Amino acid sequence: MAATSAVAIRRARREDVGVIVAMLADDPLGSGRERLEDPLPQCYFGAFERLDRDPNIRLVVAEEENGAVIGCLQLCILPGLSSQGASRALIEDVRVASHCRSRGIGEQLVQWAVAQARAKECKLVELLTHRTRVDAQRFYARLGFAPSHVGMTLRF
Amino acid sequence: MAATSAVAIRRARREDVGVIVAMLADDPLGSGRERLEDPLPQCYFGAFERLDRDPNIRLVVAEEENGAVIGCLQLCILPGLSSQGASRALIEDVRVASHCRSRGIGEQLVQWAVAQARAKECKLVELLTHRTRVDAQRFYARLGFAPSHVGMTLRF
Repeated sequence: MAATSAVAIRRARREDVGVIVAMLADDPLGSGRERLEDPLPQCYFGAFERLDRDPNIRLVVAEEENGAVIGCLQLCILPGLSSQGASRALIEDVRVASHCRSRGIGEQLVQWAVAQARAKECKLVELLTHRTRVDAQRFYARLGFAPSHVGMTLRF
Repeated sequence: MAATSAVAIRRARREDVGVIVAMLADDPLGSGRERLEDPLPQCYFGAFERLDRDPNIRLVVAEEENGAVIGCLQLCILPGLSSQGASRALIEDVRVASHCRSRGIGEQLVQWAVAQARAKECKLVELLTHRTRVDAQRFYARLGFAPSHVGMTLRF
């Protein structure tokens, strides 16, 4: 692994949406699902507004010292009755810009999310990663996650 | 399969919390995680209030004609940027009372959730099911879900 980069993890802002969508699209599974057009389709800004006003959802970005946004992660804190009423945390949409991989940025994003989950008194952090993302599974295992579940999806 | 039972799917109320927790506890994985005491620990009611006031979360129960609550499901509608800003739906805590299994009640609960997800214009419904729950995986596959992902968890 190359030297770890110091990045700031901060809440995403409306002006980050284009860079985030570019990272979501720069992916074998995501490329067919996004519309990376200029100007960016309005649907992305509508979604940003919905998630940004949800107190249980936090979309964050990893920002380099020079202000470049090079990673993202969405964390959802979900109340529920099971496990004695502990909320659980769901991690979604983790991406690191392709030219910035192997510098520990994904790890800083996930560790931020895990720390948030602890602070919110969650007992469980969960995520789904596509079966083909073997590197991602190894990455999460290194951070203490167990491949305990099958992630099942129904796509419309 | 025995004859399908007609049940009503309705929003859970505070007075259902005890029955729901009993179903969560009546489970090989859940039994060690819950505190099924009389009176029920306050933590469950606090969690119910948190989820009940969250507009993106709906905890529902399956109710028989005689008023008995025999199943539950929690649905979360999660806004996000990916898939062109479509929300995604997460199904959690699906349970059917042990004496009411194989009557199509789980299917009615899940189909309710899928219909809600469509109505909210989600493009994806997702869930995690423990690797050992082979029957559950077969059940979800029958309803159109694919075992496309690895569900990874970190438990504190």
